[in-house]
Amino acid sequence: MTAPIRIAVIGLGKIAHDQHLPAIARSHQFDLVATVDRAGVSEGPTPFFPSIEALIASGIAVDAVAICTPPQVRHDIAQTALEQGWHVLLEKPPGATIAEVVALREAAQERKVTLFTAWHSRFAPAVEAAGAWLKGREMTRAKITWREDVRIWHPGQDWIWAPGGFGVFDPGINGLSIATSILPSPMFVVSSQLSFPANLCAPIAAQVSCRDRSGAPIELDFDFLQEGPQHWDIEVETTSGTLVLSKGGAELSVSEGALGEHDTRGEDLVGEYPGLYRRFAALVRAGVSEVDVSPMRLVADAFLRARIVQVEEFHE
Amino acid sequence: MTAPIRIAVIGLGKIAHDQHLPAIARSHQFDLVATVDRAGVSEGPTPFFPSIEALIASGIAVDAVAICTPPQVRHDIAQTALEQGWHVLLEKPPGATIAEVVALREAAQERKVTLFTAWHSRFAPAVEAAGAWLKGREMTRAKITWREDVRIWHPGQDWIWAPGGFGVFDPGINGLSIATSILPSPMFVVSSQLSFPANLCAPIAAQVSCRDRSGAPIELDFDFLQEGPQHWDIEVETTSGTLVLSKGGAELSVSEGALGEHDTRGEDLVGEYPGLYRRFAALVRAGVSEVDVSPMRLVADAFLRARIVQVEEFHE
Repeated sequence: MTAPIRIAVIGLGKIAHDQHLPAIARSHQFDLVATVDRAGVSEGPTPFFPSIEALIASGIAVDAVAICTPPQVRHDIAQTALEQGWHVLLEKPPGATIAEVVALREAAQERKVTLFTAWHSRFAPAVEAAGAWLKGREMTRAKITWREDVRIWHPGQDWIWAPGGFGVFDPGINGLSIATSILPSPMFVVSSQLSFPANLCAPIAAQVSCRDRSGAPIELDFDFLQEGPQHWDIEVETTSGTLVLSKGGAELSVSEGALGEHDTRGEDLVGEYPGLYRRFAALVRAGVSEVDVSPMRLVADAFLRARIVQVEEFHE
Repeated sequence: MTAPIRIAVIGLGKIAHDQHLPAIARSHQFDLVATVDRAGVSEGPTPFFPSIEALIASGIAVDAVAICTPPQVRHDIAQTALEQGWHVLLEKPPGATIAEVVALREAAQERKVTLFTAWHSRFAPAVEAAGAWLKGREMTRAKITWREDVRIWHPGQDWIWAPGGFGVFDPGINGLSIATSILPSPMFVVSSQLSFPANLCAPIAAQVSCRDRSGAPIELDFDFLQEGPQHWDIEVETTSGTLVLSKGGAELSVSEGALGEHDTRGEDLVGEYPGLYRRFAALVRAGVSEVDVSPMRLVADAFLRARIVQVEEFHE
């Protein structure tokens, strides 16, 4: 038995409360030793601080931090944590830009600590089986549909509409994080149309055409104004059958019928974070980092190659 | 004496005529065996083809290609060339997106041929001395000014205004290619304002604030409507003196006065390409690739984190 990893959670927003704190509470590999939030208030007996600097000044022993703030402020907090010799888990997306994540990777290497770009959707129940089914198959076409109602899923999250907040790509990047881990060949953007509300700095919808190296088309259909049924689906056609991964990676069916059983009772999307924290613990124990910017690279490329269309104002 | 590398130049636009063909003609390490252009016409005795497929069908022996087309079509031509087992030089920027360059890197590795992302400004006469002077110094501030008149330098280049053409970043990325090779620490974007003409899909001006890992600010000032004197300058302040690299890397001065002599008589910017082709030949002989996307990453990040401002229409 090794000692638990003493962890502080920084940024007590929706994702910290819904996912990180419960996953840490259930894990035997982590001890929550502090929480940090610029504007939050202390809850329960865990020591609370208004900043990472105050946490450092407290002298509390910390091994690792999970950074769950909006992406625009993650870099500076992560850099401060790495300078303390702390291991760092970055909630997705790992930053507001790619180059800042590359700079953090170098800082983690120098300090010999673990940096983990945590793409939670990769830990959804059916993702591993989907990857196994696709391995060695030849893809002919794919479609990634991420259509959700921003008013339901992102209430009050103004940061999502600010530069570096990614707009509809904030959820859409979850689909890209799955696709980049299960598709047989790397993909890249060939054209992109982004719809920006006249009053905001991030897209509310995106239609992006990608291809893989063999030329197979991959269409992205991302929308933040989806009413009624919500869609988080990846469909992949191959020369030997079709795969549908739905509900954000929770359910899998293939053309031969449902593939195995994925028991998601009582887990739903909550089930992603226990797996994510098991991976983080394994990386820390092994003394290695896992830094993958490939989903962000696709988002950046979709901006770089975009035809930008102005659409009507959006107000929550 | 090894045999010269048999090279074809693909895409006979301004940069091929002004730089690539003269540099190849003067080099003892390359033999020009063909030229390829979708719309161009044959000039002189060199075999000419309207497409890479026609070049392949001709059966002419080719070792390498230099791809000088607009960036939006580079990937497919490069992929075809790599599949032939040909070495590939990509004019800057190496593609319209980052992920396509990463995919080409993997294809080159599989084929065990050389892929070279050629950033010509890094071969400007004073760049190496600037890097040597900065090495080990502590940077406190930098400014990268790339202001030129698009009507003078890019006549008729409609691709520059199309998605993936980068607009003012097409020249600005030259400054970034120098900065990423000489600055002591990696840099990343913290805010960005891009001005898009109402009738076009790429920025005509960019004001981008970056930082390095120690927090030192780096300001980018890129403009395509510069009249009068043109500016391609990098100023770097350090705790032990100031450096000014001007004329796109051709001239260097430091606070102690001009640093050494950089004989640029009769070379001007033409001097970059002989060095670039010497590097390509060395890479091919050594059987290695040089693939650096860091300048593109900064451009992509500037788009990703942009506040976009619509400005008046631009017509050449």
